[in-house]
Formats: sequence, structure tokens, C-alpha cells
Amino acid sequence: MNIRFWDASVLTMVDGEEMFNGEVWVEGNRITYVGPARDASGVKWDREIECGGDVIMPGFKDAHTHSGMTAFRSLADDTNLQDWLNNDIFPREAKMNGDDCYWLTKLAILEYLTSGITAIEDMYLTPETIGQACQEMGMRCELISGLNKFGPTLEVLEERYNNLNGKWPLVGFQLGVHAEYTCDRKLLEDVAKIHQKYKSPFYAHMSETKTEVDECIGRYGMSPVELFDSLGLFDYGGAIYHGVWVSEKDREILKKRGIVVVSNPASNAKLASGIAPISDYLKNGIPVALGTDGPSSNNALDMFREMYLVTILGKLKEMDPTAVPATEVLKMATVNGSKSLFHKDTDVLAEGKLADIIRIDLSKPNMQPILNVPKNIVFSGSKQNVKMTMIDGRILYEDEQFLNAEVMEIYANAAKIMERLR
Amino acid sequence: MNIRFWDASVLTMVDGEEMFNGEVWVEGNRITYVGPARDASGVKWDREIECGGDVIMPGFKDAHTHSGMTAFRSLADDTNLQDWLNNDIFPREAKMNGDDCYWLTKLAILEYLTSGITAIEDMYLTPETIGQACQEMGMRCELISGLNKFGPTLEVLEERYNNLNGKWPLVGFQLGVHAEYTCDRKLLEDVAKIHQKYKSPFYAHMSETKTEVDECIGRYGMSPVELFDSLGLFDYGGAIYHGVWVSEKDREILKKRGIVVVSNPASNAKLASGIAPISDYLKNGIPVALGTDGPSSNNALDMFREMYLVTILGKLKEMDPTAVPATEVLKMATVNGSKSLFHKDTDVLAEGKLADIIRIDLSKPNMQPILNVPKNIVFSGSKQNVKMTMIDGRILYEDEQFLNAEVMEIYANAAKIMERLR
Repeated sequence: MNIRFWDASVLTMVDGEEMFNGEVWVEGNRITYVGPARDASGVKWDREIECGGDVIMPGFKDAHTHSGMTAFRSLADDTNLQDWLNNDIFPREAKMNGDDCYWLTKLAILEYLTSGITAIEDMYLTPETIGQACQEMGMRCELISGLNKFGPTLEVLEERYNNLNGKWPLVGFQLGVHAEYTCDRKLLEDVAKIHQKYKSPFYAHMSETKTEVDECIGRYGMSPVELFDSLGLFDYGGAIYHGVWVSEKDREILKKRGIVVVSNPASNAKLASGIAPISDYLKNGIPVALGTDGPSSNNALDMFREMYLVTILGKLKEMDPTAVPATEVLKMATVNGSKSLFHKDTDVLAEGKLADIIRIDLSKPNMQPILNVPKNIVFSGSKQNVKMTMIDGRILYEDEQFLNAEVMEIYANAAKIMERLR
Repeated sequence: MNIRFWDASVLTMVDGEEMFNGEVWVEGNRITYVGPARDASGVKWDREIECGGDVIMPGFKDAHTHSGMTAFRSLADDTNLQDWLNNDIFPREAKMNGDDCYWLTKLAILEYLTSGITAIEDMYLTPETIGQACQEMGMRCELISGLNKFGPTLEVLEERYNNLNGKWPLVGFQLGVHAEYTCDRKLLEDVAKIHQKYKSPFYAHMSETKTEVDECIGRYGMSPVELFDSLGLFDYGGAIYHGVWVSEKDREILKKRGIVVVSNPASNAKLASGIAPISDYLKNGIPVALGTDGPSSNNALDMFREMYLVTILGKLKEMDPTAVPATEVLKMATVNGSKSLFHKDTDVLAEGKLADIIRIDLSKPNMQPILNVPKNIVFSGSKQNVKMTMIDGRILYEDEQFLNAEVMEIYANAAKIMERLR
């Protein structure tokens, strides 16, 4: 399909919040032109979309999620983390199979699309069926290994790395572990060997709670960041999820190794884990991306929520209303998300990039009067402003309609699964 | 108009989060039946709305706002409060007239409706034109005096109290001052005399920032709450806006006088004022309501944002994920809002109450699977779930359409005003 967006406020994210009125051309799955209005008669267009000044910008990247946990949305809120895990989550997860994850991931993808999310980093139980769900629905995804001492085996990890990369056009698989506290040292060392063999980026939950960091120091005399670095797990980049409780030494390591910190402000607040030191990361030049975390600890899959929270919580933490400004936030939600995913071609709008594009509707009252659009997106934007979500050149969501999903079938399957799991 | 909602998940807010499948009947501007399905053939219905299990509940009350400040949305974000006020807001407000406030309030009302807000407490420059805008658009409103040492006169205050109460069916006027720090003692004493004469509730910004409280103690040897109480300004109830920095003694006074604390979590976070001690208020039985504050310091007018923030910030403040549970939050957004407004007939769904009702769409992915609807509303709900907003028996917003507003005319007027003010 060849699709031309014209009369758009183009926010390329190449130069911060710079914006101009112009056009974005998509031919197949790539962007072929970004610039001022120009003669478009040379291309045979399938659609020419007059944007009426609406924003055309890169899609948001949800750099940390557990899609299949839609199963547990609102099942256990206002609850302590340990009670929640032991009483509500683990017993139910033990009963979940690949087919459950397939449908529950599809449910999550519907929500991602409503929020302009065009790529996800997903760590959950059955990558094979999660990847299948993403590919079928057209969602770009990196499946992240959540290996821990309860499974899977190292052989399965390596097999997945080899088999799932290349299996689907839109989906890849990356090495990682769940977290330090769910792995023993031997396991981490064994994973490090596989990591070194493939020289791939590495991912893990890290420094989410103070208890986690204190216990790791108790076990190893090192923070989780120091431990993982000492094992060579940061040698080829990647990302840590959360990064709420980090020392200056931790930050030095993250910076030196080019690790992205994926912040999950909603989850960290709801579970009372704390507020990540975003201002410190920014000052140190450590790239910050944003994630929703799973829908059980958030409970929405909404990048507008994360964008708003990362700036206001940053301001509260520093007691400084100038902290974590909107321009940085937009970069986190787009460019830095791509960096975390190791997706080089989805970060900005430019010729040759992949067409992962959203349209932001400025005709809703929350965007009026139109005074500063980038700040509007961060401070007053909402899912209601997402007029279109395109991934890989395909429009998957437009005017509140899903164009490639059997919504009622997905809901019915999720409901059926919950009868069993509830 | 007689409107029957049937096959609804009715959340009356009479008994916390209790919900049942049934019907709500509206005849004229009143609710005439709330209960299980029953024979409806005795009434001549203008519309019978099959809700398909969607939630029917009382509308949200935005208990503190400055609607006309839509003018300043995204005009000065990521900025210090004093810079923002002195450089960005005050010089522009000096140029604003009644007609400006009229159109800018209408713009805000559009946004309230998208968020299921059915009543507002509005403190801004020209109550006469703000009230007119509310009445014309069908928005229920209490205009709150924002008197301070720059105006208006005491005579105008009393005149407004007498003339604006009763002028419009949907709009009232309440006594109040802007804040301690914008009034001198003599002025507060004079206002107290008027207040005592009319025995009316009283409203003011109070204890929003630590500086404000410290300076008040410096001036009077008393906190703002103690000072206002000592002047008799709390004798007939009312509300304070913000209440972020309060002492135990302040809380005792608020409790004794039956004062509602209207919390504005988004604004308090964005301006780095702090997190209000919501858990303490709840423990002390002090009613908490929610407000958006003005769109310049928020920047949205979205009660889903406030509901989510008040619970997660409460959890962060206490470092306790069980703090400020969803049931309390729903009560804040509905029942306690009505209490702050002194609107006795809009708090819950029951026979004889005014028909200020919203419909929450459960068919969006963020509400699926349906496991716990009240928690869903607080933790994953969004404006996208507001399928209908009814005030005083009139449907004003349905399926993203405004049924009693010239949207483009409002946008055009707001844009024109901003050309002058910008």
C-alpha cells in the first residue's frame, strides 16, 4: 500500500520538538518522503490522507511490558507486592498455557494500538505463542527472555534465540533473565556464556525495589547493576527495567556500557516501589525509555499515562517544576524506545525508515487552543487523541476501529480463559 | 425528556463499590427509578437505551478548577511557579475580559464532558460570563469567589452573592477568597462579616505549598487553616483547595468544622508543590474531593487522571501499595465532590436525585477482561470509556459527539482570543 499523509504537522523527532507543516509518504513498509508539500502525482497512491493539521509522528515504543498479564488486570489492586505475587499471580500463572498467552497478548495489542504504541518489548511465559499473536496482529515486538531458576532450561533459551529470530518479519527474540533475585549465581554465569557467544544485547528487571538491591548486596557485596556488569552481561548493550534504586557507581556502569534504563513510572508508583532518578539519568546522558510494565501492576497500557507520570514524578522527586521537560519525555517514548529495542529504523520520521507512524488528533478539546503541540501531547494528550496507528506501513487502528483484529473473538477468549484462571 | 437506561451495570455509589445489573429511569431532570429490570410500559419514553452491561453511575464532580485558564494550556510548562505566574499568567490575565472568559470556559466545558464531569467548582475572573457559559452549555456549576486584594470590592462580592444565586437554574455562587497570601488581615475580617451574615459555606486555596504555610505562620503565628478558623470563616462548612501542607492541628480543625479537602494531585505534582496526606485525611474521617485545578497547571481537565494520581501518589507517599484504595477514590470523585459543592441531590443514583449520570463503556480493551469494574474505572479507565454524559436529565455528550455545543465556533473564538493574549 502507498499512503500519503498531507497537510500534517510533522513531528519527526529528528530535532527535538521541531515541527513543520508538510507531508509524509509511505510506500510499502517504508517512509519515502518527509518534507514540505510537494507534487505527489508521480506515485500511485492507495490513500491520500488530508490531516487537517493533525500531528504525524513516530509511534510510541512500550519498552517494557508483560502483555499476557491482561489476565490479572484489576484482579488484585491496592495490595502488597508479595501478597499479590504469592496469592494472586503465581498460582494463576502456573495454570496458564501457550494458548492463554496468545489470546491475552492479542487483547493487550488492541490496547497498545489505541495508545499509539507501535512496538513492544515483551517478557512473558510463552514467547512462541506471544510472537505468533504479535505477527498475526501486525505488532512489532522483541520477545525478551524472562529465564529464571524455575525455567526454562538454558537449551530452550538458546533454541529460542536461534529459532525465533528470523521466524517472523515483525518479531525478534532477545536474551535476558527475569531478575537477579530469581536466578542464582551459577545460572547467571551460564546465561552469560550464551550471551558472550551471541554478542547480543541483554535485558533484565533491575533495581526495582530497595529490598531487592539490599538483598543483592547482602548476597554478593554488589548491587545488581555491579553484579551483572561483573559477569559481562552488559558487554553488548541492552536495557534494564525499572532502575529505581541505583547508586552513583551503578550510573557510571550504565553510562559506560550504553545501557538504556526503561522506566515504568505507573507501576513503580502503584506498587509503591519509588520514583526513578530520571533527572540524574538525563544529566549523566543515560538514555531513558518508557514502559507500561504489565497490566496487572499499572493497570493500563497507555503511553500517555507513562509520559505524563515520568515528567510529573520527576518534578516531585526533585521538588523542581523544571525537571524532566516534555521534549525529553517525547524522546523517551519514541527515539529511546527504539534504542532499547535495538530497532534502528523506527526511531524518527525520515526517508528510508520503517513506517511506524501515528496521527494525533488536535481537534479534541484537550488540545485546544493550539499553543504548543509537543507539550500538549505530553501534558494533556490522551488515547482519545490517537486517530491512527500504523505499523510497518499498515494502518491497524483508525477512528476507534481496529482494522486487522477480531475484537469480539479476542474478548470472548479472554473471558473464557479467566473463567478457568480466576 | 424521559430516558430509560436498561441492561446496565448500575454503580449507585450508595454502598461503596456495590454494583448490580438493572435499570435507571430519568423523567425530566430527576431519577425516578434505580433497581433491577422491571416493566417500563407505564412511562412514555423518549429514548430507551440498551446499555449492554456498560456502567451507569453518578457523574464526576470537578471540585476545583479555573476553566478560563484553557487560555494558558501548554503556554508555560516545565517552569517555576513564580516565573510562570509573573511572566506568563498575570500579564495575560490583565488583558482578559468577560467575553474571553465566556469562550474559554465553554472550551473547558467541552473537555469536562469528555471526561464524564457533570459539575464544577469554578473560581475565575468574571463569574457573570462564566455562569452564563455554564448555563448555556448545560453544565452544573458553583461559581466561587476568588476575591483578593486586587479585587473585586466587598460590595461586588455581596452583589454577586445576591444576584448570581437564583439567576440560573444550573449555576450558583459561593463566598470565598483566593488565598491567605493574596489578602491582608483587614480584608479577611471584612469578608468574614459577609460570610457570617449569610451563613454560607466558604472556599479558598489553602496550604498548597510549604512556602505559603511558612510565610503565613511568619505573618500571623498561625497556619492558614488556623487563621481562617480563628476568623470564623469555617463556621458554615465549605472546602479548602489543595491542603498539601497541613499539621495535625489543622486536620483537627478541618474535621471539627466539616471542611472538605479538595485535592488536586496533577497540579500539585506538576508544580512540584508536594503530595497531599490523603491517607491521613481518610484516617481522620475528613472528606476528600478531587479537582483538576486550571488547565494551565495540569494541563488536562480529566477526572480519570486525578483518580489515578490520587491513589498512586498516596501509595508513593506512604510507600504502601494498600494506601488510598479505589473505593475511596470513586467516592472522592462523586459523593465527596457533591459534598464540597453543597449539592445534595447529585451525589448518588437514587430515586428523587438529579439526573447527573454517566455511562462507562466496558467494550474498550482497557476494561477487558471484566474482573472488577470499580477498580477498572480508577486504575485503567480513561476518557475513551465515557460513552455518555448527562446533566440535569439532558444528554450533552454521546459517542464522542457534543449535542449542545457549537464546537468549531468555540475553537475559533479561543484561537482568536489567543492571538490577542499570546
